[in-house]
Amino acid sequence: MVEQRVGFLGLGNMGAPMARNLIAQGFSLTVYNRHPEKAEAFRQLGAQVVTSPEDAVVPGGVVISMLANDQAVEAVTLGTRGLLSRLGPGGLHISMSTVAPETSARLAKLHQAVGCEFLAAPVFGRPEAAAARKLWICLAGEGAAKARARPLLEALGQGVFDFGEAPQAANVVKLSGNFLILSAVEAMAEALALGEKNGVGREDLANFLSQTVFACPIYQNYANLLAQRRYEPAGFKLSLGMKDLRLVRETAESVAQPMPLADLLHARLLSALAKGRENQDWSAIELGTAEDGGVE
Amino acid sequence: MVEQRVGFLGLGNMGAPMARNLIAQGFSLTVYNRHPEKAEAFRQLGAQVVTSPEDAVVPGGVVISMLANDQAVEAVTLGTRGLLSRLGPGGLHISMSTVAPETSARLAKLHQAVGCEFLAAPVFGRPEAAAARKLWICLAGEGAAKARARPLLEALGQGVFDFGEAPQAANVVKLSGNFLILSAVEAMAEALALGEKNGVGREDLANFLSQTVFACPIYQNYANLLAQRRYEPAGFKLSLGMKDLRLVRETAESVAQPMPLADLLHARLLSALAKGRENQDWSAIELGTAEDGGVE
Amino acid sequence: MVEQRVGFLGLGNMGAPMARNLIAQGFSLTVYNRHPEKAEAFRQLGAQVVTSPEDAVVPGGVVISMLANDQAVEAVTLGTRGLLSRLGPGGLHISMSTVAPETSARLAKLHQAVGCEFLAAPVFGRPEAAAARKLWICLAGEGAAKARARPLLEALGQGVFDFGEAPQAANVVKLSGNFLILSAVEAMAEALALGEKNGVGREDLANFLSQTVFACPIYQNYANLLAQRRYEPAGFKLSLGMKDLRLVRETAESVAQPMPLADLLHARLLSALAKGRENQDWSAIELGTAEDGGVE
Amino acid sequence: MVEQRVGFLGLGNMGAPMARNLIAQGFSLTVYNRHPEKAEAFRQLGAQVVTSPEDAVVPGGVVISMLANDQAVEAVTLGTRGLLSRLGPGGLHISMSTVAPETSARLAKLHQAVGCEFLAAPVFGRPEAAAARKLWICLAGEGAAKARARPLLEALGQGVFDFGEAPQAANVVKLSGNFLILSAVEAMAEALALGEKNGVGREDLANFLSQTVFACPIYQNYANLLAQRRYEPAGFKLSLGMKDLRLVRETAESVAQPMPLADLLHARLLSALAKGRENQDWSAIELGTAEDGGVE
Repeated sequence: MVEQRVGFLGLGNMGAPMARNLIAQGFSLTVYNRHPEKAEAFRQLGAQVVTSPEDAVVPGGVVISMLANDQAVEAVTLGTRGLLSRLGPGGLHISMSTVAPETSARLAKLHQAVGCEFLAAPVFGRPEAAAARKLWICLAGEGAAKARARPLLEALGQGVFDFGEAPQAANVVKLSGNFLILSAVEAMAEALALGEKNGVGREDLANFLSQTVFACPIYQNYANLLAQRRYEPAGFKLSLGMKDLRLVRETAESVAQPMPLADLLHARLLSALAKGRENQDWSAIELGTAEDGGVE
Repeated sequence: MVEQRVGFLGLGNMGAPMARNLIAQGFSLTVYNRHPEKAEAFRQLGAQVVTSPEDAVVPGGVVISMLANDQAVEAVTLGTRGLLSRLGPGGLHISMSTVAPETSARLAKLHQAVGCEFLAAPVFGRPEAAAARKLWICLAGEGAAKARARPLLEALGQGVFDFGEAPQAANVVKLSGNFLILSAVEAMAEALALGEKNGVGREDLANFLSQTVFACPIYQNYANLLAQRRYEPAGFKLSLGMKDLRLVRETAESVAQPMPLADLLHARLLSALAKGRENQDWSAIELGTAEDGGVE
Repeated sequence: MVEQRVGFLGLGNMGAPMARNLIAQGFSLTVYNRHPEKAEAFRQLGAQVVTSPEDAVVPGGVVISMLANDQAVEAVTLGTRGLLSRLGPGGLHISMSTVAPETSARLAKLHQAVGCEFLAAPVFGRPEAAAARKLWICLAGEGAAKARARPLLEALGQGVFDFGEAPQAANVVKLSGNFLILSAVEAMAEALALGEKNGVGREDLANFLSQTVFACPIYQNYANLLAQRRYEPAGFKLSLGMKDLRLVRETAESVAQPMPLADLLHARLLSALAKGRENQDWSAIELGTAEDGGVE
Repeated sequence: MVEQRVGFLGLGNMGAPMARNLIAQGFSLTVYNRHPEKAEAFRQLGAQVVTSPEDAVVPGGVVISMLANDQAVEAVTLGTRGLLSRLGPGGLHISMSTVAPETSARLAKLHQAVGCEFLAAPVFGRPEAAAARKLWICLAGEGAAKARARPLLEALGQGVFDFGEAPQAANVVKLSGNFLILSAVEAMAEALALGEKNGVGREDLANFLSQTVFACPIYQNYANLLAQRRYEPAGFKLSLGMKDLRLVRETAESVAQPMPLADLLHARLLSALAKGRENQDWSAIELGTAEDGGVE
C-alpha cells in the first residue's frame, strides 16, 4: 500500500532533505514548518503547505515529525492545533527526532488512548547523509505500524534496524550511538595530547589511527577535525551534544546504571560551555584535554 | 640490498608467524628463542637455530626482536651473551615489541654508543594478522636505518608508517592505539548495559553499532565478544592489557598530560585483576560495568 | 517582638524535636502533619493541632516548614488548602527543608507576589542534634524577615549563619555541606581499603585518623561506621543521599560548573541503589569500593 | 634505659626542630646533614657533628633518619659510608621520612640481614608542629624495637600510634592521611566553585563549613587558603604532594585496589604541574576546578 498523502512536520537541516527525498520517491506530502518561509520552497516540488501541525494530518493517515528536541515534538503533537487532535483511529505518527526515551514512552501512551500508533524512528547521519538517502534508521513500536512505515523509511535511508515493540528502545539506541561517538572523540583527544607531548605529530597520529585500526568514517572525520582543531563551523553543535549527554545520564539514572565515561564526557561538555564554546562542534571538548595539559 | 642473514629473537605467538613469513619471502634467518623447543621447528624451514641472542648476530648485520615485555627485550639485548655485545658498527636492531617509550630511548643510546642503530617498530594485529602479513607497523628511528629495515618490514605487514627520528615515538603510537581500543570497549560496555536495562538486546545493539556507525574490525570484534560475554579464551590477556595501560599512565605522567579516560580504564583493569580475571580477554572489563549496575 | 502564634508544618524525625524545643522556649505553636496521629502528641504540650497547612496560618504571621523534599514543601505551600492561600501581606514562611535552590527561588517569587516573605533556613544535624538544640542553621532572604525569624531560629540551634538576600544561597550551602560529608566518606572508604590490603586494620586506621588529623565529629562518626561496616539502621538513608547528590549535580549543571568528585559520588550511590541498598546508611557506598577491590 | 648517644640524619625543615627537641629533652645527639652548614648550628647545642651517615652511628645503638624522599633514605642507609655498614647487631634505625611502603619493607629485610632492627615512624604535622612537639607519629615494626624507640618518639610528638609488626604499615597510614587531606581540598574546591557561581561568597562558605560541620584544623587551614587563593608561600609544595599521590597509586596498584578519588587528585596535581605550579601549595589544585568552570 502506498500512502495517499503523508504529513511531514519539521523542515530544518535534517527534515528538509528527507522531505525532498520522499517527494522524489513518489510520495505526496503535506508539509508544515514553524517558520513558514522554509515550507514555501516545497510548494514548487508539488507539496501542499499548511500552517498548523493539525492541517498536515489526514485522519487515519501517516504523519512524520523531525524536530530539534523534546519540547518541539511535544508542541506539534499535543499543543493547540497539534497533530494528535486530528490523527484519530488508524493514524500513525512516525517520530524521527532525537528525544528522551521517556518522552517516546509517554507520547506512545497518549497516541494509544485515541486509537492511533506511535513509532520512534531516530536516525544516524548528518544533513549530507540525509540528502544522499544514507541515513541509518533505528525503528521501534507496534508490528503492523512498523510494516506500514517501512516503505517511507526505506525511501529515507540505507538501512532500517528493528528494536522491538517498545518505542523508547529506538531512542536508547540513538543516545547510545551518540555517546559512543563522543567517547571516541575523548579517546582521540587524550591520545593526540599524549603523542604531541612525546614528539608525535597530531596529523601523523590521526592519519595512522583512522587508516588502520579504526578505518571507519566516524574516526576519519573526527581525527581530521581534532588534528587540525577545526571546530567551526560546527557539524554538530556542542550545545546539542550537551542535550544528548544529559539525556544519556538521565536515562542511566532512571535504570540505576552507573556510566562513568558518560560522566566524564558530560564534565568535558559542561566545561566547554563554561568557556563559551556552545556554538563550536562538540568535538571541541578536545580543547579541555589540551588545557589540562597546560597548552593554551 | 637483500640482507644476507638476519637474526630473529623471540618465537612466541607473534614472533613465530612473522619469522615464517620472512623465510617464505626469501630471507635467511638465524633464530633464537628462550625455550629452545619452539625454535626447532624452524630448522626444517631452513633457519639456523642458536641458543643465545649473541649467536643470532652477524656483526654489522640486522637483528629483529619480538618479545613479551620490556624486561625480555632488555635481557636479550643487554644480558650475558646479549645481542649488543656482538652487533657492533654498522649493525641494526629492529625492536618490534610493545615496550615503554623510555625503554626504547634508553636502548637507542646504548646502541649508538657501540656504533649501531636501533629502530622501534611495534605492530598492530593479532597472531592471525601476523600470519596473513596483515600487520600495521609503526616505525621510528634514524633515516638510513629505516631504509635498510623497510624490505623486511614490508615482508611482515600491509603497511609501514613512519613517525620520525626518535625511536620512542613509534612506541607512543602503539600505546595510543591500545588505549583507543580499550576506550572503545569501555564505551560499548556502558552502552550495552544502558540498552539492556532499557529493553534493548545486547546482540541487537552490538550488531547495529558495528554494522553502521562503527563499521570497522575493532568494533565488530569487540561488540561481538561483549554481546556474548565471551572472554575466554583470551585474544589479548587482561594482564597484558594492564601492562599497556600502566605504560600509558607512566608516559602521560612523564609529560604532565592528564588522561582521565586512561585512569578510568586502569581502574577497570585493576578491579578485574582483583576479581581474578587476569587470564580472560581484556574486554572482560565489561563485567565491572555490569556489576556496578547490580548485575551478577 | 515575640510571635503570638507560630505555624509549624512537618513533625517527622527532624520537625518533631524542633517543634518541641520551640514550645519549651515559650512559643505558642499550631502544628500540622500529613499523618495526623503524629500531631496528637503535641496537643498535650499545649500546641493547637490542625488538619490542613492553611489552618496553621495566622494571616500576617509566621509559619515554619520542615519536610522531606521539594514535592512536600510545594504541596503544603501551593496545594489545595496550602499555606500560601492564607499567609497574606506581612506573613513570613521559614522553609527549613533541604530542597533545590531553584525551588526556593521559585517559591520566594510566589510569596512576594502575594505580599509575604520567604526565607530559606536549612539545617545541619541529625535528630539527636535537633533535640539538643545543636543544629547549625544556614539562613538567607530579605533582611527584616531574617531579623524577625532570628529568635525562633536561635531557639532551635547553636548557630545561625547569614548568607545574604537570595534565599536559594542557603540551600546551596546545605547541598555543599552534604557533598563534603559524602566526599569524606568516599576518601575514608578508599583509604581503609588500601590500608586493609596492606595489613593495616580498619579500626586502627579509622581511630588514628579521627583522633588526630581529622578530629571532628563527622570523621569520628563515619570512620566508626566504615570500620565496622555498620550501615543499618541508617542514620541518613542512601536514597535520601541520592536525592541530595542529584540536586548538587543539577545545580552544578545550571551554572556550568564541572564537579568530578560529585559525579564519582553519584556513581557510587547509583551503584548502591542498583544493588538494593537504598535503606542502608548512605555511607554504605563504601561497599562499592570494597567490591571494586574484589572483596565480597 | 636512656640511649647514650643517638645518631640523627637529616636537618631539614622537619628534622632540625625534631633534633632540637631531642637535645632539649636530654638526649645526646650526633647529627649529620648532607649540606654540612646546616649541621654547624647544632654544635652549639651540644651535638656532635659528623660528615658521613656512618660516623653518626654507634654500633648497636640507635639512629634516626628524617629525609625528603625514598632516594635520600636509601642513600644514607645503603650508600658509601651509609649507616648500615656500621649499625650492626643490636642496632636500631628509626626511619621517620614519608616513603613508599615497599621501600620500608625492603630496608627492613636488609637491616635484619645484618642483625639490626628497622622501624618506620612517619609523622603528621608541619614544621611548626614539629617545633612544638605536636607531631602525630605512626609506628610499626618489631615489638622490642618499638619499646626501645618510644622514649625518643615521645620526646618528639603528642601521640604515638602503633600499627603492628610490619614496618610498611606505618607508611601506608601516612600516605592514607595525605590522601585524605587532599581529598578534603578537592571537595572544598568544588563546593566553593559551586557556591560562588550561585552567589555564595567564598569566605562565607569556607567559614561556615570549618566552624560547624568540619571544625578541625585541616579544614580550617585549607578553607582559609582556598577562600583567599593564597597558594604562596607553599606550606606543602605541590611537587611533593605529587610524589605522595604517586606513592598512593603505586601502592594501590600493587594490591589491586582501585582508588578513583586518588586518580582524580593525581590528575589535578598533574595538570597543575603542566601549568607551572610546582612551587605553589598543593591546595593550588583548586585553580583547576575554577578553570574548568571558565574562571580565569
